[in-house]
Amino acid sequence: MDIHAKLNDMGLKLPPAPKPGAVYVPAVQAGDLVIVAGQVPFVEGKVVQTGPVPSATSIAEAQAAARVCALNGLAVIDQHLGGDWSRFVRLVRLGVFVNSDDAFTEQHIVGNGASQFLVDLLGEVGQHARAAIGVNTLPLGSSVEVEMMAQVR
Amino acid sequence: MDIHAKLNDMGLKLPPAPKPGAVYVPAVQAGDLVIVAGQVPFVEGKVVQTGPVPSATSIAEAQAAARVCALNGLAVIDQHLGGDWSRFVRLVRLGVFVNSDDAFTEQHIVGNGASQFLVDLLGEVGQHARAAIGVNTLPLGSSVEVEMMAQVR
Amino acid sequence: MDIHAKLNDMGLKLPPAPKPGAVYVPAVQAGDLVIVAGQVPFVEGKVVQTGPVPSATSIAEAQAAARVCALNGLAVIDQHLGGDWSRFVRLVRLGVFVNSDDAFTEQHIVGNGASQFLVDLLGEVGQHARAAIGVNTLPLGSSVEVEMMAQVR
Repeated sequence: MDIHAKLNDMGLKLPPAPKPGAVYVPAVQAGDLVIVAGQVPFVEGKVVQTGPVPSATSIAEAQAAARVCALNGLAVIDQHLGGDWSRFVRLVRLGVFVNSDDAFTEQHIVGNGASQFLVDLLGEVGQHARAAIGVNTLPLGSSVEVEMMAQVR
Repeated sequence: MDIHAKLNDMGLKLPPAPKPGAVYVPAVQAGDLVIVAGQVPFVEGKVVQTGPVPSATSIAEAQAAARVCALNGLAVIDQHLGGDWSRFVRLVRLGVFVNSDDAFTEQHIVGNGASQFLVDLLGEVGQHARAAIGVNTLPLGSSVEVEMMAQVR
Repeated sequence: MDIHAKLNDMGLKLPPAPKPGAVYVPAVQAGDLVIVAGQVPFVEGKVVQTGPVPSATSIAEAQAAARVCALNGLAVIDQHLGGDWSRFVRLVRLGVFVNSDDAFTEQHIVGNGASQFLVDLLGEVGQHARAAIGVNTLPLGSSVEVEMMAQVR
């Protein structure tokens, strides 16, 4: 899979893996599972979408932010694999946390911003199980946070 | 294990596995782990319990909803196993998310609605580790969401 | 690794593993992964830090509570290993849930109370991926809840 060419076709490119903003590591492998730390919508070291949905962030903006989180997660996996995507088996799980006003109940629609992107990019091996929930706040005021579990060889 | 007979004894039956309401798959297997997507209290395609505990949903109602979520998770596992429960090794983990008023602090009691049911049904192999937390809102206004990790052969 | 001597050097000791406060087990192993149930800041059976950050609990208090949660998680792992830490391979993941006022956005700083302690204690094998999120409430009013995934042999 040439993920870089496919991203290029989508008008995107893999950013550098975000450096952890606290005392943890971007990814840990145990057996053939890789656990990727929760990603916020960092672009060049700055969170680009903050505040709850929908009062401060529209659903469309939150979906775009979820895609940024997913792209950052892929950058972490790329770094973990040393760029060798032939070692990538499949995505397994996404955890999607949506900064939500109490009355907002479309977290699954926001999560699709990440999920649709990953399936479009990776195809069948991008399909994943998912838990999407609402929360009242997130680190750095992020509108969305996404964590990933992947299988590698 | 004849899960169908046991459910029948409990006055229940396995529903069809809920179709994902968004861009994800119901379950993914990596090695011998099966990750089941977050389940809301769907009955025949409709969320049957909505709103926060306890202002809109009583603890007893939320426990019943947690049991519905667990039953849906079992339906997903059943579908994943092609109905062959001899491949089921054990439950491993539940994540329980309870739509909660800010002052509500009995999420673990709500979670027992799922956990007690699973232990009653599956016995020792139904025992699981668990994280139960409160959240301010959930997809489709669901009162509870439950995700599962299981081990299979 | 003599975890007991190192804890002693830090002025700490491993408490008894907290008994589950509901219908679940403290830890489940599947393959070489151990899933530890969500830990609240229990000390001798009582939650020692309650209420949201920062209105009821300062960041420093929440960090201390996160460390208590981590210590309880280690106690569960110790019990699971029958005290034989030569079977411990590494920490893999922490989930950190911070009881948060809506405007609080430093959950990652609170999480460092657990993460820094674990890295100080365990060294390189204490490094972990992490998802830290805010929530509006937690079981028993706890200010923090921490769940763990570890790899063992």
